[in-house]
Amino acid sequence: MSKVLIVGSIGLDTLETPFGKRESVLGGSVSYASIAASLFSPINMVGVVGQDFPAVYVDLFKSRGINTNGLEFREGNTFKWKGYYEYDMNQAHTLETHLNVFADFNPVLPNEYVDSDFVFLANIHPSLQLNVLDQIKTPKFTMVDTMNLWISTTKNELMEVIKRVNMVLLNEGEARQLCETPNLVAAANQILEMGPDFVIIKKGEHGALMFDKMGGIFSSPAYPLEMIKDPTGAGDTFAGGFIGYLSHMEEINAINLRKAVIIGSALASFTAEDFSLDKLKTVSFVDLQERYSEFERLSAFESLGALQKQTII
Amino acid sequence: MSKVLIVGSIGLDTLETPFGKRESVLGGSVSYASIAASLFSPINMVGVVGQDFPAVYVDLFKSRGINTNGLEFREGNTFKWKGYYEYDMNQAHTLETHLNVFADFNPVLPNEYVDSDFVFLANIHPSLQLNVLDQIKTPKFTMVDTMNLWISTTKNELMEVIKRVNMVLLNEGEARQLCETPNLVAAANQILEMGPDFVIIKKGEHGALMFDKMGGIFSSPAYPLEMIKDPTGAGDTFAGGFIGYLSHMEEINAINLRKAVIIGSALASFTAEDFSLDKLKTVSFVDLQERYSEFERLSAFESLGALQKQTII
Repeated sequence: MSKVLIVGSIGLDTLETPFGKRESVLGGSVSYASIAASLFSPINMVGVVGQDFPAVYVDLFKSRGINTNGLEFREGNTFKWKGYYEYDMNQAHTLETHLNVFADFNPVLPNEYVDSDFVFLANIHPSLQLNVLDQIKTPKFTMVDTMNLWISTTKNELMEVIKRVNMVLLNEGEARQLCETPNLVAAANQILEMGPDFVIIKKGEHGALMFDKMGGIFSSPAYPLEMIKDPTGAGDTFAGGFIGYLSHMEEINAINLRKAVIIGSALASFTAEDFSLDKLKTVSFVDLQERYSEFERLSAFESLGALQKQTII
Repeated sequence: MSKVLIVGSIGLDTLETPFGKRESVLGGSVSYASIAASLFSPINMVGVVGQDFPAVYVDLFKSRGINTNGLEFREGNTFKWKGYYEYDMNQAHTLETHLNVFADFNPVLPNEYVDSDFVFLANIHPSLQLNVLDQIKTPKFTMVDTMNLWISTTKNELMEVIKRVNMVLLNEGEARQLCETPNLVAAANQILEMGPDFVIIKKGEHGALMFDKMGGIFSSPAYPLEMIKDPTGAGDTFAGGFIGYLSHMEEINAINLRKAVIIGSALASFTAEDFSLDKLKTVSFVDLQERYSEFERLSAFESLGALQKQTII
């Protein structure tokens, strides 16, 4: 059975949306991605938290079979983010960021992690992502996420990471920023030329696009939610669901990659339906199967068949 | 054979995009929609032009079997729009608008038009759209488009139109503005409650969503163009392709509606590949079949099959 390594942030979020507020709830890319991926494969989690980190969240990880030996407990407080979403939920507004113990995060893999097969490097400083890649023996599949900050401040290191991974995952704005073009197809093709085999561009409520080196493009819809309660973590849930499902399959091929995108999108839609991981952590295989079927109904259309020219011409 | 009535603007556009410029070329909703729809059914065109309108464009319409008896020639100049697109092609910037003869447009249908089966009311003043609806005898399917101006200035009349048609077609921004919600699903459901059977929300480079009264939603991708030369008229091409294909089918049902959305999207992608109608007017059935197949490849994914829980849990 493939093992999935997930490295990134673990945080405590305080946030408000038009549908309510929460104080100091579980957040961070590793939390969302690991819970999502743990539906399919054993997860090796790497992150850092402070002494204020509630034991109940560690229990949650363990209850999902997640290996938490790479979860470092340090003197001080856990990474904290405070923010809000306005009625238009596309944009998170940050009120406060306290990096706390995350400021000195330097991921060192426990020995038992170095043979992980699938690797998701969530958004952290590119030099840390490189460090992690150096510690992995022979990964089958590596995937990296990033953010606007690293594109503008540490582009060279980010390019080094991009060269070395199988897949780059980024959102619309980041793709445009990185490649200095408004056209997403052009951006994806630019990134593919840097080295990776695949690029996924996450478009939030508009779904996702996956590009491969052979010119293949897959367009996944987003699940049309009438109420988005809290979009925090949807992108990381997508990533975790994607790599988790892929690691679960016998082969990395076009069919499974596409299915993995739909799985990621489906799980992300659950995340957005409630605050923090409240909904995601309850999702069963039956729930997931049902939502997957809804994605099929959402995007199915029949072949065209023969067209008959109107007789008048 | 069903006849399609198309009412709206015909104009001469002067525009510049990062890929070139054109002076006084054919534009207007009726031009794009009619040429697209004429691939499938006989078109009854209604619009007004001035004495400066080049005969070559009338010839183009006629060469497609379009009935131009509803094309009114008036003293004065044709509607003119001058604008440009920046590198981000999502937004047209208007430099000049001269309504000219279009200012007094009052569509009166030739007698031979009143038994049209399919009706596309492109973006004109809602009271003119109501006038047209009053003149049609027993349409099988009516569809309306609009714009932000009418939503803010003549909302009551627009609501009257919406009540009376089978389908409302609008873009993301208009849907949000009309329904005062950022959520497109909520907006579509609000519009469906006003009376129509279907709503299509056009999302430009993100494709389109079609909603029906039974809760059915269809998400169509957009064709991923690496270079958009001129997006003018893509939305009207979509509309024309959609209603043209639908009119060509024996039945208005979910299968054909979805196929019509893909046809509309495919034709719209051709429009964006060149200025004005330069590409659209050359599109053959073979071109369309090929692009339709590309939409199939773009959005196809396999069923999930059984999920096996990871043994570790």
